[in-house]
Amino acid sequence: MTKVTAQLSVSLDGFYAGPRHDGAGDWLASVEAAAFFRVTRWAISAMSWRERQGFAGGERDLNSDVIQENFDAAGAYVMGRRMADGGEVPWGEEPPFRAPVFVVTHRPRQKLERKGGTSFTYVTDGVASAVEQAKAVAGGKDVAVAGGGSLVRQVLAAGLLEELELHIVPVVLGTGLRLLDADLGLGHKEGIELTPIRVLHAPDVTHVRYAVQGRAPLVLDDRGRGDGQ
Amino acid sequence: MTKVTAQLSVSLDGFYAGPRHDGAGDWLASVEAAAFFRVTRWAISAMSWRERQGFAGGERDLNSDVIQENFDAAGAYVMGRRMADGGEVPWGEEPPFRAPVFVVTHRPRQKLERKGGTSFTYVTDGVASAVEQAKAVAGGKDVAVAGGGSLVRQVLAAGLLEELELHIVPVVLGTGLRLLDADLGLGHKEGIELTPIRVLHAPDVTHVRYAVQGRAPLVLDDRGRGDGQ
Repeated sequence: MTKVTAQLSVSLDGFYAGPRHDGAGDWLASVEAAAFFRVTRWAISAMSWRERQGFAGGERDLNSDVIQENFDAAGAYVMGRRMADGGEVPWGEEPPFRAPVFVVTHRPRQKLERKGGTSFTYVTDGVASAVEQAKAVAGGKDVAVAGGGSLVRQVLAAGLLEELELHIVPVVLGTGLRLLDADLGLGHKEGIELTPIRVLHAPDVTHVRYAVQGRAPLVLDDRGRGDGQ
Repeated sequence: MTKVTAQLSVSLDGFYAGPRHDGAGDWLASVEAAAFFRVTRWAISAMSWRERQGFAGGERDLNSDVIQENFDAAGAYVMGRRMADGGEVPWGEEPPFRAPVFVVTHRPRQKLERKGGTSFTYVTDGVASAVEQAKAVAGGKDVAVAGGGSLVRQVLAAGLLEELELHIVPVVLGTGLRLLDADLGLGHKEGIELTPIRVLHAPDVTHVRYAVQGRAPLVLDDRGRGDGQ
């Protein structure tokens, strides 16, 4: 049964990257990148991540297993335009996805076929359409929202996300791009409720997987009343 | 050996309460309170919390054990002025702390003695002084920064916090008072590094205890390079 999932590495204060790079100068030297590489450091060390990128070495550990499991679960991906553009050259002829990727964009573009099972289809009619197209080809596996963070947030805000795994990295960054920010458009005394369904912890990261229950009112809870009501 | 500790219940997006109540009308009816009661619901159900408040009932479970352990570990408390003022009447003649409490305030006030071992000493020369005074009377137990969130943040920013336990509640609130916000005053490409030292999970909350390592530069990590350097 296909689920719509997402996973993202975030700092303890909820940032997946530093403040957005303004485009001048080298992205790798930016504050955005410094924070991004700090919160993804655990993954870059993992053997399963390195193998998908064609790199040697890495640790065969819990973190590597978590990444491998997420790769294995995905039958198709949905991706933001900025991430897709940024990855196009570094990922090369054989990108790490090995599955169809649906890129949400405003600019029509011909489908891009890559080696190893990866393709990029450019979807111009919105996030929900991209998710539907990905579901149709996922072969019963999951549709993984690959990122970036703003696309994950859009899918969550639209009520389309079923599972969210956060890789919570023990660093406080103070500023940057947040996964869960005010753009979620929650109403007065309204929250999005989730249920933790798996917690795994390594020394450098805590992996918490949530099932998304959806929007719900924040009901004043009076169990703290002294009369036991 | 006395450690300076803090614990706080936060939403998945880092809020410990809703947007600050403006003082008009009933706090209990405010958005600040609705969010505060949502993120502390797990504690209000716990037997150990209820027993300290003089309430009957509650669950004797993992959450209750976590609270009991934190009460047992504290030999003295440091508290913000707003929390102390807000609690003064509800806590009554026998507050739940059963230890000396040092309140950080700008307004001098005579020490308040309560039953059961709790006293309130009003400290007007700053957070570091309050922490020192609490250490001096903690009897080898920990100094717990009781809150609110802005005081915990001040203690963290000042480099005085040694352990931080977050009770991460699976709800997204979108807005409110954040524990870890821009007031931390971090420098360019600087973070506060922590190490998770204990992770416990219940269905309604994930308890993660961190040792605070302190400020450190965000070093660009190049282990993702294909040449294995």
